[in-house]
Amino acid sequence: MGCMMDLVKTVADYAGAREDKFFKATLFRGTALLLGMNCLEPGQVQPPHDHVDQDKFYYVVAGNGRFWLGDEQVQAAAGDVVWAPAGLAHGVRNDGHERLTLLVGIAPAP
Amino acid sequence: MGCMMDLVKTVADYAGAREDKFFKATLFRGTALLLGMNCLEPGQVQPPHDHVDQDKFYYVVAGNGRFWLGDEQVQAAAGDVVWAPAGLAHGVRNDGHERLTLLVGIAPAP
Repeated sequence: MGCMMDLVKTVADYAGAREDKFFKATLFRGTALLLGMNCLEPGQVQPPHDHVDQDKFYYVVAGNGRFWLGDEQVQAAAGDVVWAPAGLAHGVRNDGHERLTLLVGIAPAP
Repeated sequence: MGCMMDLVKTVADYAGAREDKFFKATLFRGTALLLGMNCLEPGQVQPPHDHVDQDKFYYVVAGNGRFWLGDEQVQAAAGDVVWAPAGLAHGVRNDGHERLTLLVGIAPAP
């Protein structure tokens, strides 16, 4: 099983940035669940897409963003959870002035 | 599908306390994933237990706790994720001085 300390991670240590597109990192991957980070600099976009058989959530760790959910848009900020049930198109744009740091879960794991 | 605003929830609005045992609330439930809150007042315990076929995580929103993972114990504080893969016994004790507020995910949903 390895060291149990490997089962605790500080989210801030896994945040980051890319110039060309939004930043992704994996925290943990099991059969049933993938947990990772999505970080968007101001103006960056994760284009709307869907996962036919996967439930997904975003937890906003820092910043704020405009999320697409189906044909609608919703605003979410630090401390909010955005839920994208299986089959619902979803995406996000950082329309704030600081990095948008998201903890993301996808089940089952892709 | 109802109003998309129902797909955004502020975690702090779902925190709470019970005197007799730790507090639980459901945020979202899909087929593949259940997302909810566990809140422990100082001294409260979620006894170690396991989910044979379910991956689980705790994200520490506020406070700090001592988590059981198998035979070991690890400390985690606000901003940390604790991962309990399917089959690994896990639990938590609030050994701090403020409420321990946890965002919890279980996949597949129980």
